Amino acid sequence: MSAHPHHEAGDRIAVGVDADAKDRNLKRLRRIEGQVRGLHRMVQEDRYCPDVLTQVAAVQAALRGVARELTRNHLKHCTAAAVAADDGTADEVIDELVDLMYAKLR
Amino acid sequence: MSAHPHHEAGDRIAVGVDADAKDRNLKRLRRIEGQVRGLHRMVQEDRYCPDVLTQVAAVQAALRGVARELTRNHLKHCTAAAVAADDGTADEVIDELVDLMYAKLR
Amino acid sequence: MSAHPHHEAGDRIAVGVDADAKDRNLKRLRRIEGQVRGLHRMVQEDRYCPDVLTQVAAVQAALRGVARELTRNHLKHCTAAAVAADDGTADEVIDELVDLMYAKLR
Amino acid sequence: MSAHPHHEAGDRIAVGVDADAKDRNLKRLRRIEGQVRGLHRMVQEDRYCPDVLTQVAAVQAALRGVARELTRNHLKHCTAAAVAADDGTADEVIDELVDLMYAKLR
Repeated sequence: MSAHPHHEAGDRIAVGVDADAKDRNLKRLRRIEGQVRGLHRMVQEDRYCPDVLTQVAAVQAALRGVARELTRNHLKHCTAAAVAADDGTADEVIDELVDLMYAKLR
Repeated sequence: MSAHPHHEAGDRIAVGVDADAKDRNLKRLRRIEGQVRGLHRMVQEDRYCPDVLTQVAAVQAALRGVARELTRNHLKHCTAAAVAADDGTADEVIDELVDLMYAKLR
Repeated sequence: MSAHPHHEAGDRIAVGVDADAKDRNLKRLRRIEGQVRGLHRMVQEDRYCPDVLTQVAAVQAALRGVARELTRNHLKHCTAAAVAADDGTADEVIDELVDLMYAKLR
Repeated sequence: MSAHPHHEAGDRIAVGVDADAKDRNLKRLRRIEGQVRGLHRMVQEDRYCPDVLTQVAAVQAALRGVARELTRNHLKHCTAAAVAADDGTADEVIDELVDLMYAKLR
């Protein structure tokens, strides 16, 4: 599969993705990658800890922007599709998301 | 200043940094950079949202490891130095850290 | 309205609530009320700050249990009903929940 | 001990507590107790989940105000005393606080 060189056979794919949401997340992630490199440089230079922590907080906020977009997309497409299918999978999809939100994500 | 090519005149420097703590954080940040590139690829490939969110949670946990190490180092060195100096700056240093912990970091 | 003495005319009511989920949350909230009174006593007695903070963390975890149950119930009933109605309100309901999760709740 | 009727022999006591900070926290905790009772009533009345979640978020923010005041007090008094004592206990006091901040509190 030339378009998805890293894509493995067992990987799950989203039911639907808004093109705009996807584009915003790709841009956010490029910016986050640069911010993480900036953090590496600050630690290398022994910069004052609160200044480094302020930058860590900026990366955390940017990552939450990514998670928020993914959650909204998941609810609008995948969860809605599971509800519409009415085949009993909606509860599983909802439990999976709620576990993620409350047990893993910050 | 050859050792710190990106270092600006006004940048604040830490009073003291444990060599081990610094080394651990530099390694963590390299790994985080790779994880963020992996996230970019997952979004590019329209991977299933909960699988991407699980990876976002892993990056968040790794970033918290960096913040935790920085906070511990700051308390052991900079805050302790401010308390020992007994020149009235300790309260400012403490207020700055508490504001960061409760208003910015997650 | 004798059953809901504090209920105001403009209050919004849930589309559906699982009786078990409601019962668990009422029990959790009674326990949390007792924990908060315990915190008041600890502060009154000048107890060691980390011991009080440990108890604050316990209340935070219990409150998250309440929020998790409410979120699951909301997704299973109210959001599902909005998706099924297919009248364009599902997006609003989803945006409202995502804003809550990412901008207000911890 | 009439002033501290619930105080047990093994309870640890804070090195120092600002009277103003203590007073603010006692008031916050009384208000939180009322908010939790309000939550119980909302759940009892099957109120719309996002409205209940908004109130949960308000209680979380109020609890964080308590934790923030306790953390500041702990750093200004107990941690400062441990640093000044210079008897090797400062590291333990700092590790205990950092573990609390990053592993338990939200």
